[in-house]
Amino acid sequence: MSNSIGEKFKITSFGASHGTAVGAVVDGCPANLELTAEDIQKELDKRKPGTSGVTTPRKEADEVQILSGIFDGKTDGTPIAGVIFNRNQHSKDYSMFKDTPRPSHGDFGWMMKYGNYDYNGGGRGSGRVTIGHVIGGAIAKKLLKTQNIEIVSHVTQIADIKAKPQDLSVIKENIEKNPVRCADLDAAKEMEELILAKKQEGDSVGGIVETIAVGIPAGLGEPIFERLDGDLARILMNIGAVKGVEIGLGFDIASKTGSQVNDQYQVTDNEITTKTNNSGGIVGGMSNGMPIVSRIAVKPTPSISKCQDSVDIEKMENKKIEIKGRHDPCICPRVTVVAESSTAIVLADHMIRSGFIHPTNLENKI
Amino acid sequence: MSNSIGEKFKITSFGASHGTAVGAVVDGCPANLELTAEDIQKELDKRKPGTSGVTTPRKEADEVQILSGIFDGKTDGTPIAGVIFNRNQHSKDYSMFKDTPRPSHGDFGWMMKYGNYDYNGGGRGSGRVTIGHVIGGAIAKKLLKTQNIEIVSHVTQIADIKAKPQDLSVIKENIEKNPVRCADLDAAKEMEELILAKKQEGDSVGGIVETIAVGIPAGLGEPIFERLDGDLARILMNIGAVKGVEIGLGFDIASKTGSQVNDQYQVTDNEITTKTNNSGGIVGGMSNGMPIVSRIAVKPTPSISKCQDSVDIEKMENKKIEIKGRHDPCICPRVTVVAESSTAIVLADHMIRSGFIHPTNLENKI
Amino acid sequence: MSNSIGEKFKITSFGASHGTAVGAVVDGCPANLELTAEDIQKELDKRKPGTSGVTTPRKEADEVQILSGIFDGKTDGTPIAGVIFNRNQHSKDYSMFKDTPRPSHGDFGWMMKYGNYDYNGGGRGSGRVTIGHVIGGAIAKKLLKTQNIEIVSHVTQIADIKAKPQDLSVIKENIEKNPVRCADLDAAKEMEELILAKKQEGDSVGGIVETIAVGIPAGLGEPIFERLDGDLARILMNIGAVKGVEIGLGFDIASKTGSQVNDQYQVTDNEITTKTNNSGGIVGGMSNGMPIVSRIAVKPTPSISKCQDSVDIEKMENKKIEIKGRHDPCICPRVTVVAESSTAIVLADHMIRSGFIHPTNLENKI
Amino acid sequence: MSNSIGEKFKITSFGASHGTAVGAVVDGCPANLELTAEDIQKELDKRKPGTSGVTTPRKEADEVQILSGIFDGKTDGTPIAGVIFNRNQHSKDYSMFKDTPRPSHGDFGWMMKYGNYDYNGGGRGSGRVTIGHVIGGAIAKKLLKTQNIEIVSHVTQIADIKAKPQDLSVIKENIEKNPVRCADLDAAKEMEELILAKKQEGDSVGGIVETIAVGIPAGLGEPIFERLDGDLARILMNIGAVKGVEIGLGFDIASKTGSQVNDQYQVTDNEITTKTNNSGGIVGGMSNGMPIVSRIAVKPTPSISKCQDSVDIEKMENKKIEIKGRHDPCICPRVTVVAESSTAIVLADHMIRSGFIHPTNLENKI
Repeated sequence: MSNSIGEKFKITSFGASHGTAVGAVVDGCPANLELTAEDIQKELDKRKPGTSGVTTPRKEADEVQILSGIFDGKTDGTPIAGVIFNRNQHSKDYSMFKDTPRPSHGDFGWMMKYGNYDYNGGGRGSGRVTIGHVIGGAIAKKLLKTQNIEIVSHVTQIADIKAKPQDLSVIKENIEKNPVRCADLDAAKEMEELILAKKQEGDSVGGIVETIAVGIPAGLGEPIFERLDGDLARILMNIGAVKGVEIGLGFDIASKTGSQVNDQYQVTDNEITTKTNNSGGIVGGMSNGMPIVSRIAVKPTPSISKCQDSVDIEKMENKKIEIKGRHDPCICPRVTVVAESSTAIVLADHMIRSGFIHPTNLENKI
Repeated sequence: MSNSIGEKFKITSFGASHGTAVGAVVDGCPANLELTAEDIQKELDKRKPGTSGVTTPRKEADEVQILSGIFDGKTDGTPIAGVIFNRNQHSKDYSMFKDTPRPSHGDFGWMMKYGNYDYNGGGRGSGRVTIGHVIGGAIAKKLLKTQNIEIVSHVTQIADIKAKPQDLSVIKENIEKNPVRCADLDAAKEMEELILAKKQEGDSVGGIVETIAVGIPAGLGEPIFERLDGDLARILMNIGAVKGVEIGLGFDIASKTGSQVNDQYQVTDNEITTKTNNSGGIVGGMSNGMPIVSRIAVKPTPSISKCQDSVDIEKMENKKIEIKGRHDPCICPRVTVVAESSTAIVLADHMIRSGFIHPTNLENKI
Repeated sequence: MSNSIGEKFKITSFGASHGTAVGAVVDGCPANLELTAEDIQKELDKRKPGTSGVTTPRKEADEVQILSGIFDGKTDGTPIAGVIFNRNQHSKDYSMFKDTPRPSHGDFGWMMKYGNYDYNGGGRGSGRVTIGHVIGGAIAKKLLKTQNIEIVSHVTQIADIKAKPQDLSVIKENIEKNPVRCADLDAAKEMEELILAKKQEGDSVGGIVETIAVGIPAGLGEPIFERLDGDLARILMNIGAVKGVEIGLGFDIASKTGSQVNDQYQVTDNEITTKTNNSGGIVGGMSNGMPIVSRIAVKPTPSISKCQDSVDIEKMENKKIEIKGRHDPCICPRVTVVAESSTAIVLADHMIRSGFIHPTNLENKI
Repeated sequence: MSNSIGEKFKITSFGASHGTAVGAVVDGCPANLELTAEDIQKELDKRKPGTSGVTTPRKEADEVQILSGIFDGKTDGTPIAGVIFNRNQHSKDYSMFKDTPRPSHGDFGWMMKYGNYDYNGGGRGSGRVTIGHVIGGAIAKKLLKTQNIEIVSHVTQIADIKAKPQDLSVIKENIEKNPVRCADLDAAKEMEELILAKKQEGDSVGGIVETIAVGIPAGLGEPIFERLDGDLARILMNIGAVKGVEIGLGFDIASKTGSQVNDQYQVTDNEITTKTNNSGGIVGGMSNGMPIVSRIAVKPTPSISKCQDSVDIEKMENKKIEIKGRHDPCICPRVTVVAESSTAIVLADHMIRSGFIHPTNLENKI
């Protein structure tokens, strides 16, 4: 198994839902970035469950401890290990899933591939392991902030309810005002009601999460196999429930003509920009200086309490399954922070790789 | 720049549109795979332009030469270098683009990032460099065939014209019968007419390409950062004109409930399958034994002959641009072979990585 | 900075001498290997200081805690994080080295490169960070044992005192009988006395550590750039005090003729072996089935209490330095376990990479 | 198999001794380096055989052709593919080695590991594949020259004949004056005579090659697993006939005390240097600004015409072997250029990785 991502700014993640701890080692962060445990805790708190009716009622304390990599309040160039010791895990709930894979869950793959599957709470297949992504993302965001790069993710659709587009400043303000993290407050209200209704039915719903990154210089990403769009697509598709990734116009571009969607250039104030941003800030695998806009399709949480068909993989026979427990009826609000973190990790990595941030010492000019 | 992809089955691509040659080194193919230049040529011929009205009228001979890696008609475990020497390139056409980026082309990024941009024929940013992908893909497909894995890509949409779903056997047969490589022959006819009409207008159109891979065992891909869906998303998004990637239901899953889309398990003939395949063959980052289905959104070719706004990056002033030349009015038909190749590269790599194919010698049982 | 090594069996190390903790994440160990914290603790205890007069009198508890990767007493294929919280560190001893590099220590590089140097106890440049190597090595050794591969390191020279060659079984027995970990007990006694004499003088001595690995199948390692000898040389040279690495006859081979040193083949008991092992088990970058024998040159501990010349890098002026504290007068005995661990990491990695051990599940036959 | 080395400045090598071609793709060289085929040819000519009695009388034209990566006389940031088509290969000489490994040759490993071994001229195990190293090294040296870094390798020992130490300027001048590439002209004469005498006997001799690199800034290399000394040790040990690598004092340091060998610092002319260079320019895995000095132990060419014992691996029986053909009686003179190239590749890679050379565009200041 490989649990690392990134080339220069690299995350190695570890831990399982009901094991001793979950965490990540962040390697390659240049020295002299001011960093505290609070910088990471703040991001972790956004993905914490139990904060509203639209997420799982499980309480997770999720207090991060930094084990290494900080000296005198600043990074010192050495790996930053962040760890959260697990608490409040109810392992009694899961033994029934030992040989019975849950529909559309990853556990079937785990059983087939490794032959010693920690089925408690989804083991390492649990959404809880995205804590590692968020630790990495929090540090990446802090690093990007020194370059005036900002990233925000928000929910744009839940089931059939679509949010109206908003300005970035509105998005940043409004997502903190509702548990769905949707910038259109009217839609947010509807979304919340729908999620609660589905929860009552023992069902779940999917949605779409958009991520916007601003302040990126032109020339990030490499044009053939280590493209910025390819690397973003990978890390976003790697998020557990994601089944689609698009940049800029995305799938809508398929029905357009070149003359409709080409982003034409202009010089204004001695700066080159494009008049439209149908490319979502990336052309030819490289950033063009415009905001980078991606969207991901998030499937409905597969854990639903309705009765479903499954199998006993040991006995090789059919078997019904009912998944009780405290599951998120909709994962989208919590996915926003993971999407933000994942985007930040890729951008921080490429900022170093492309020479915009010095690889070893942030104080060195480049 | 990094021009390699893959961990165990690795492609390193080189060359530019109007340079001396384009090619690829394929490293990590196990020994004892029967392989000839014809195996590769056959695939290259599919992406060759000039074969119908819907692609560019440029003629490219594209005869591949294998420089290494074959002994006694079989791979010997050493790197396979494939090269095509360039001919029929008209460098005189391109000097006007030296400092004037074409809208929605990658050339702006090249200019910003490298400062010595080979603008002839798009240089290394040209679609012609996908020859490297196809060389790698042809070998990957031959390797996968030994494991009874088959991959096929076809056009499912051009502009607003959508093909009706077809069975795999029909798809394989029908795509060879029309220049659009669409399996619905009625739609294919309409698509062809639309493309030719847009060509007349000096415009271009986008579309959607679907890839189906069958015969993959359960357990391919690693569950966290080197997921099969993530790696597919990356390599597909890396294809020049792609702005979106989806697996299984893709973006449609966002509007569904868990009870509508969960893939429930069943045992039939002592085999575990799912009753539906909304997951597109991948759950939790790992294959589940069902067909792997992906779709990519392909943007309209940005090279159109209509007048567009651009800039002179040296003089930092606005400038009009008209792109004459022999461009594809729709890139989708030729993208099919690149999507097929890219998918094959990722699957071959993961088949070795997961222990389904022996890493050094195909005759060794695993 | 990059703190990872290995391709399939990969170690990511973290932590500093006087920070909160030191540890490592071991990624890529196949599932179903029986493993306990004791397996790791046993190896860590060998490198623990304070156990005899020939090492530093510092006491380090060094109790390892496994945070992840074990389920039901066996590895489950997920990353194994091992951590040791630091105790008994005297940070007051080191502030004088903030701007004054110690001769032949790494700290000058740290100061130049990162600009925020944790000078306490050598920070991450301390020998204490080899705890990460030993955690990885302990797991690698357990994994290799399932394939009947055994590795042992011993001291063959301290200053001018050279041990007489011994059989493997004698080596294994005798190194536990003396604090120098030398298999020639007479030489060991002399070495111990010399080390204690140098300690009295406030000086230190170097030596040579040999590592022997038996049971390795032929065909490990790849012939060009990922050779077994190259990878061993790298990981051994990476050990802090090492200034030379040799395989088989090593530097003595330079003065020989081909007819003197070529290892001629023979068939005995339906097995191919070589009559001599001047190659040290590796030819053409690949193992040949004979014992793998390496030796490393270990420099005298640079921390000596004699007065030395140094500089103040802030003031850019000359400055005398005296390094007080509890330093090892000879690092060789403790280096043995690090050499053993490092060798085990490389061999485990290549056993998986070459298909001798299944990459995901130890119970799968290959 | 993996045929790549380097992280940012990366070489992918391909080709076999008697195949169609040998070559390399050099990826990651920043744009705007002036480069011609002659720059590479000049280095290749140094390793060319047939130029004196001390090397093989085989003639190899070895004319390199650059296929990509150069635009307007300068690198453009894209991969540089260099290829040499093979000529003058006598495949008839080698069929007898199909199932009979040559003592101390790599071919036994190839037979065991890949099962389809190109035995002609040693196939990909031939020293001829170091052409790939030299292509990479020539580009690396040109890149390093822009930073005033210079690298030179010379023979310091053949069998028991040791050269007297010389100043760098003398070394550079004298190695061109004799076929052994030894800087001590008296020793060179003796070495030449000894090699010719051994050739007459059908035997071969080993030796030692030293490499000196000057002009390297302090802070190259990373302190734990991607150390400069570790990376140099790996690439040097990867050279076919090398059995030992040492840096600075190397194995001699084992018999010294700390007070004898510690490199003490001094400030002179507002620059920090060390009074001695026993560390060979690398401490704690990082360069310290002093010349980087390494030595490698080169074994006698294993191909000797004397009768030797071997086996038939198919029949599993003993068999005598006599290796006729045109072999180098001593490989050391030709190894010098490979050592120089290998050192250059590692240094160029680390210069980019550590931020001393801009990763994409040489004209960008860092």
